[in-house]
Order: sequence, then structure tokens, then C-alpha cells
Amino acid sequence: MHKVQPALLRGFDQEYLPREQLQFNALIEIIRKNFELFGFLPIETPSAERKEVLTSKGGVEKEIYALSRLAADAEGDEASTKGALRFDLTVPLARYVAMRERELAFPFRRYQIQRVWRGETPQARKGRFREFYQCDIDIINRDKLSYLAEAEIPSVIYSVFKEMAIGEFRIRINNRKVLKGLLQDFDVADRDSAAILRVLDKVEKEDASKIRDDLVREGMASSQAERLYRLISLKRTTDETLDALAELKVRNEMYGKGVAELRNIAAAIRQFGVPDSAFCVDLGVVRGLDYYTGTIYETTLVDHPGIGSICSGGRYDDLASYFTDTKLPGVGISIGLTRLFSKLREAGLLRPAPRTPAEVLVTTMDHQYLGRYLAIARRLREAGINTEVYLETAKLKNQLAYADKKGFRVALIAGETEFGRDRVQVKNLSTKTARECALEQVVSAVRETLNDSSKEESS
Amino acid sequence: MHKVQPALLRGFDQEYLPREQLQFNALIEIIRKNFELFGFLPIETPSAERKEVLTSKGGVEKEIYALSRLAADAEGDEASTKGALRFDLTVPLARYVAMRERELAFPFRRYQIQRVWRGETPQARKGRFREFYQCDIDIINRDKLSYLAEAEIPSVIYSVFKEMAIGEFRIRINNRKVLKGLLQDFDVADRDSAAILRVLDKVEKEDASKIRDDLVREGMASSQAERLYRLISLKRTTDETLDALAELKVRNEMYGKGVAELRNIAAAIRQFGVPDSAFCVDLGVVRGLDYYTGTIYETTLVDHPGIGSICSGGRYDDLASYFTDTKLPGVGISIGLTRLFSKLREAGLLRPAPRTPAEVLVTTMDHQYLGRYLAIARRLREAGINTEVYLETAKLKNQLAYADKKGFRVALIAGETEFGRDRVQVKNLSTKTARECALEQVVSAVRETLNDSSKEESS
Repeated sequence: MHKVQPALLRGFDQEYLPREQLQFNALIEIIRKNFELFGFLPIETPSAERKEVLTSKGGVEKEIYALSRLAADAEGDEASTKGALRFDLTVPLARYVAMRERELAFPFRRYQIQRVWRGETPQARKGRFREFYQCDIDIINRDKLSYLAEAEIPSVIYSVFKEMAIGEFRIRINNRKVLKGLLQDFDVADRDSAAILRVLDKVEKEDASKIRDDLVREGMASSQAERLYRLISLKRTTDETLDALAELKVRNEMYGKGVAELRNIAAAIRQFGVPDSAFCVDLGVVRGLDYYTGTIYETTLVDHPGIGSICSGGRYDDLASYFTDTKLPGVGISIGLTRLFSKLREAGLLRPAPRTPAEVLVTTMDHQYLGRYLAIARRLREAGINTEVYLETAKLKNQLAYADKKGFRVALIAGETEFGRDRVQVKNLSTKTARECALEQVVSAVRETLNDSSKEESS
Repeated sequence: MHKVQPALLRGFDQEYLPREQLQFNALIEIIRKNFELFGFLPIETPSAERKEVLTSKGGVEKEIYALSRLAADAEGDEASTKGALRFDLTVPLARYVAMRERELAFPFRRYQIQRVWRGETPQARKGRFREFYQCDIDIINRDKLSYLAEAEIPSVIYSVFKEMAIGEFRIRINNRKVLKGLLQDFDVADRDSAAILRVLDKVEKEDASKIRDDLVREGMASSQAERLYRLISLKRTTDETLDALAELKVRNEMYGKGVAELRNIAAAIRQFGVPDSAFCVDLGVVRGLDYYTGTIYETTLVDHPGIGSICSGGRYDDLASYFTDTKLPGVGISIGLTRLFSKLREAGLLRPAPRTPAEVLVTTMDHQYLGRYLAIARRLREAGINTEVYLETAKLKNQLAYADKKGFRVALIAGETEFGRDRVQVKNLSTKTARECALEQVVSAVRETLNDSSKEESS
């Protein structure tokens, strides 16, 4: 028979073995739990949206996958003629809020953990794929939004990455008004500022001369480019940076407003319980996107700067102006989880999944005792312990090899000898030691062995 | 400014308000927990696969959505020229197992909860959508698979739907060999049997005369069609049906084998702890798909037969013959969760989400006490209680209205008077009663009030 090659599409290839999938799911659970701890509510949106919804903000058309019909002779439907896959979770959020404005409670705090698709060139080295997970939170209000929302976001990020325990991290914040005010002060025309910001956005990745050259190419005088570069690449403590900004001789209203906001928000972030070791004001945070208007965020791992930002976002003044006249200011961040996972794995920073679904294997030496094996499994499951019964006919040795390969922590073993005395062997698969217990005590004996085995693993 | 209409694509429209999303997520959690209790391991596969992978089994091309580029001038990539969205989770599983055969432990027990896409005509009345969730489990082994795996599947289904508490349900099983043997005995040529099975598959939905007419149209003699119909629509207890099958004068090897399998599997299902009230042998279970070879399953809600099967599947002899020479027999079922959710909601069978992420709202009467409000929230979150601080400036009345709309269960209220005495008001939002407690006792006071409020709701 002709065989089809079982292979994946480039960029649609972040598929894991069960053991890795468990690690991935553990990260999702940490993110979800912390988002919920702060009162964010879950939503999911359809994978495909109307093309005009996705392109309403413009700019990314080239990266969007549209839907079509596979069979050439199939009649098109609405999805295959008018639909395309979302490339982020922000545009669907804008559409969602505009559609359901009357039913939602404002401030609307939502989280969303779903896949998005982008037709970029995949680069595993950079953790860039065509299909990947984003984990977003946003706080959206009608008409106005307190600066405290901007200060709260870092406390959520802090809580997520602290629990992930992936090493020291720093939430770096800046303010768009500060950047825009600076550019105005440098006489950069508004229409050129987007290009300048895109150059500055690379300040962490490119060397000084490249950045300065690019600034000059975008129309800045060489001396100004030098001054701007030095300012942006300043690395000091939060308070020193705030003082330096205040002392700059910049007479620009937007700049003044931005510096005041930065100062207030930095103070509030401390009140929200984020220690100074975990956040800083950093003028090198720029963000490519045009639509941010206040605080902008990036988060980096201190010992792994090469991974780049693992969580980014910012404040915007109007989420859904393309869909509704209601003014909807908001603030949000996104964790690119597929990329983060891939980089953490590469850096050896992933911990084994804390608890696998495969805890106990009930081996079956003799199928005439099937009823007993199944009864043991039922009792363990009723106690909330994940339990599998080995249902094939195989030598005990092979059953135990299966248990090891799948990652079980405990095996139960019993045949005529044990059942004759109403007992069962409980084998700790990490230490390879076994003990016997009365059938009636099987739940507590397994629990103890699972506890021993997790101590073993974490020691 | 020109506005874009914020609307969804037909069939890509099962999008929920946060309150409903929480109910949906609660069902997913029940499914996931029970799958894991039985030792199934999670995997996820990419949304898009290579076209030749998806069409390897043939037959459904017309329903498949391919990917293309949205921008006419964009250069195609591998995904947009060779990729299409998966229409089920079984074909990706076959590709996955064929690719990773050496790394997996067999029997391979996996669960997968993901969206799939089908270009069918959407019908909300039938719960048919173009994008929907499937929740699948499969047990796959190399070369041979014990009949016990077929008997275990109903115990997993039983455990899932018992916990969902959506009313009495019945897992109905049949065996493909019985059906095929019967058709052979009725002299239906093998090449016609697929068409006959498709007619029989509608036995629950169409009336008797329509079924009999269709059987005749597919080539059966009228008297045979009548006899076959009567047999298939038989409704008796499991043991009566098994006896009736044994007594039938059918001299066909496959039939005999099928009846023996059914009897063994029914006996084993009881050993797996599924009560007779929750399952039965029912010859009316046919399943459209060609590739089943042994037990087939459907599950229906006893009081809502109109909902149709909420969980279906069966035994197959070779999962991945299009990709590999390794013989991979397996058995699996799928819950179409989007459809189930839509029908349960319609029938009023959904319970309120057991625990919302929005438990406690810390109201903020006076922002000069912000530090204190935030400290309270931190203590509650550290105790695992989902807590939001109201960050905008608003009258207490409006903050409480927000709490009601979003579904908070407890509000904390404090201003100069309360903080002056180091106390805070704890308001139960279901009973609208408040009590005061010392700031130091806030965690235990909130816990008690949450307990009272959940008793209130369940009474």
C-alpha cells in the first residue's frame, strides 16, 4: 500500500510528547490560576473572523492566513470566502467588546489563552512559529481608565513568573508619552516618529553604531541621534532614571506628562507589592506598535537576555474605534507561550511536570483476578488518584518497563500469593523498593508512597 | 470614521459571555480530570496539517478548509499552499503515532481536547457548527489490543457524565461484526453494506417506513428489510438482547464472533463498575464510519433523546495504515463538546459555574487608603482567593452594582471609620448582609462568608 509521509508543516510544528505536553499544560495552569487570582474572566473567540474585522486596523495583511476550500469543486461558504485566521487576540477582543458592550461589566477584565496564526518565516532559533499560543490579559473601561490599572499589570506579571520559577526576571516599563515628547523635542516630525520608534525598538538587539546609523537614515541629525541613543540605552535604578528624566531640559508638554505618569505608576507598582528587584523604568522599552499611548511593558529573564521579552504590552486609548463610537481605553499584556516554552526548554529551565496523570499502574499478573484489580483501581480513583490498569496480557517485567517509560510513580503488584492473604505489593518506581499492605489500606499506602516518591524527586 | 460591523462568521459563532465561558470551562475540567483519572495522557496537535495527511483516509475533502494567503500579492508559504485545517482528532492522532512510534509507550493512551473545523452547513438547532471542540480518548496498541480496552471505555464515559450531573444517560453499545455478519446472512454484498449501514445509522432519527423504504432502495428485498428493521430497533435489556442474538438462526462466522465479543464485553463492562442502568446492548447503534471493526458506542440522555448521541466511537483494527506498516489496533470515543454545551444550555441543564474567578471585590471608598486595600487583596490572593481591587474612582453604590453584574460573591468595604479601628466590612452579595471583622481576620472571615454564600446558592 502506498504510504503518506507522516510529517508536519513548517512553523506548525510545536507538537510535544505527552511528557512535554504535561510541562506545557503546567505553565498554562500557572498562568490561568494567577490571572484568575486577580479577577480576570476567561473568554475564547473563534479561530476565524471576517476579513474586514481582522484588517480593520491595517498593516499585517501579508501575514494573515485566509480560509479556502480544499476541494476545487466545492461550493464556497461564508467562512471560505470571507474568513481568515486571527493573528492576535487583541483585534478579536476589540470586536468582542464592541459586539457585547451592553452585556459586559466595566471595567472589563478578561483573560484569553488561545492559538494565533501568522504567515511569518518560522525561525526555531528565535522561537518564531506560524502557529503559537498567546496568553493575554486586558483591562478595558468606558471613557476613562485609571492609571492604577497600568500599575496593576506588573503585579499580575510578577505573580505569574514568580510561580513559574524560571529564574530572576525584570519587568521593564517605559511610557510612550515620554518617547513621543522626546522625539517632538528633537524636532522629529510626527509622521517620522513611527519609523524612529521602530529603530529604537531594536536597541536591545543591535549594537550602538547600527542604531545610530539607522536613526540618521530616518532623518535625524547625527548629534541628535547620538544624544537620543545615549538616553535610551541608559541603565540605572528606577529612581535614578526618573530623576534624570526630570532634570533633562525638555520643554514639551507631552514629555512632562509622560514623566509624571511614569513617576506615579512606578510608585503605585511598589504599592501593588512588586519589589524593586523585579521591575525598573527603562527607556529602552519601545514596542513596535503604534497604538500604545501610555505605559509600555517588556519582561526579560535576567540570566537569559537572549530570550528577549517574554511578556509585553501597554496602555492604549481606544481599543475598538474601528467598530464602535464608544471610547474604550485599556491596558494589556501578552505572553507568547509557545515561544517562551521553546526557549525555556532550550535553556534547560523547564521543571518536570509536578504531577503526571499517570500516577499508579495496577499490573495484572493473572487475569482471573481482573475483578480485584479493577476494584483496587476504582478505590484509588475515588480517592482522586490517577490510576491505570494494565489490560493486555504481558509478563510482569514488560508491564513494569511500560510503567517506567510512561512515567508512573507507583506500581501495584498482586497475584495468587498476595490476594490469598488479602494483600498487595506497593512498588515505588523511583526507588525500586516495594512494601506489602493490606488490600483495605491500599489508598493510604499508595498515598504515602506517592509522597515519598515526590520527596525523592525534588531532593 | 467609517465603522466595520463587529460580527461573526456563520458556524464560527459559538462565542460565550464570561459567565458561560466559565460553565464551558467547568465541563472541560470535568472531562480532563476524569480522562487523567484513568491514566490518559494529554497531547495537542497543530491546527493545520499537510493536505495529503488529512485526505489520506479519503472521503471528506469537500468539508475541509484549506489555508491560503489573504493578501493577493503575498508569496505563498508551505502552510498556504500545502496546509489545511484538521476536521477531526483521529487523523492527526494517526499521523502523530506513526511519527513518534519509537518514543511512545504502548498501549498508548492519549486524550486530546481541541477545536476542529468542518465546512458543513451550520444548524444551531442540531448543534452543528463549523468550528467546534472535540474531546477524544483513544487506547492504541501495537499488533493486538485486548477486548478489555473496549470494555474500559464505557467506564470512562460513565465517570465523566456522572460527574457532569446532566441527568440519566445510557451508554449504548453494539458490535460491527454482528451488523456485518447479519448483512452477509441477508445476502447483502460487501460493497453494498456501507450504504445499508448508513441507512441503519438513522434508525433513531427517522420513522420505520422511511428506514424500510431506504433499505429497499439500497437493494434489499422488502421482507428482509422488514426483518432487519425489527431486529435493529429491538429495545430490551442487555441480557435479553444477548439471548435473542444467540437464538437467531444466523449461520455466519463473523456474526458468531461478534455476538461472543458483545457478551464478553458486556460482562467485563460490569466488572469495570458500570451499572446496568447506565449501559445497554442496542443493535440500533450503527455509526456511519466504515473503519470500525468491533464494539461501537453511542451515549444518549434518557430524558432528552432529541439531543442525540453526546459521545460516540468504537474499536478499529488499524489506526495508521496510511502512514506506517506497523499494525496499530485501537479503540476510542469523542465528545463533541461545543454541540453538547449548546444542547445542554438549550435544555436548561447547565449548572452555574461552581466557582467563578471573581470571588471577592475590594471596593475603594477613598484612594488615600490604596495601600491598605492592596495589602488586603494580597493577603487574600496568598490564601488562594480570587480577588479584584476596584481601581477606578466611583461611588460605592456603582462599585457594588459592578460586583453584582460581574458575579462577585463577597465585597469588602472600608474607609476612614473602619480603618480607624483596624476593621473592615465583609458583605455577602447573595444575602446582601454585612458583618465587620478585624483586618487581621480578613482571610478567615472571607472564607466563612464564601462558604455561607455557596450554601445559599445550592439551597
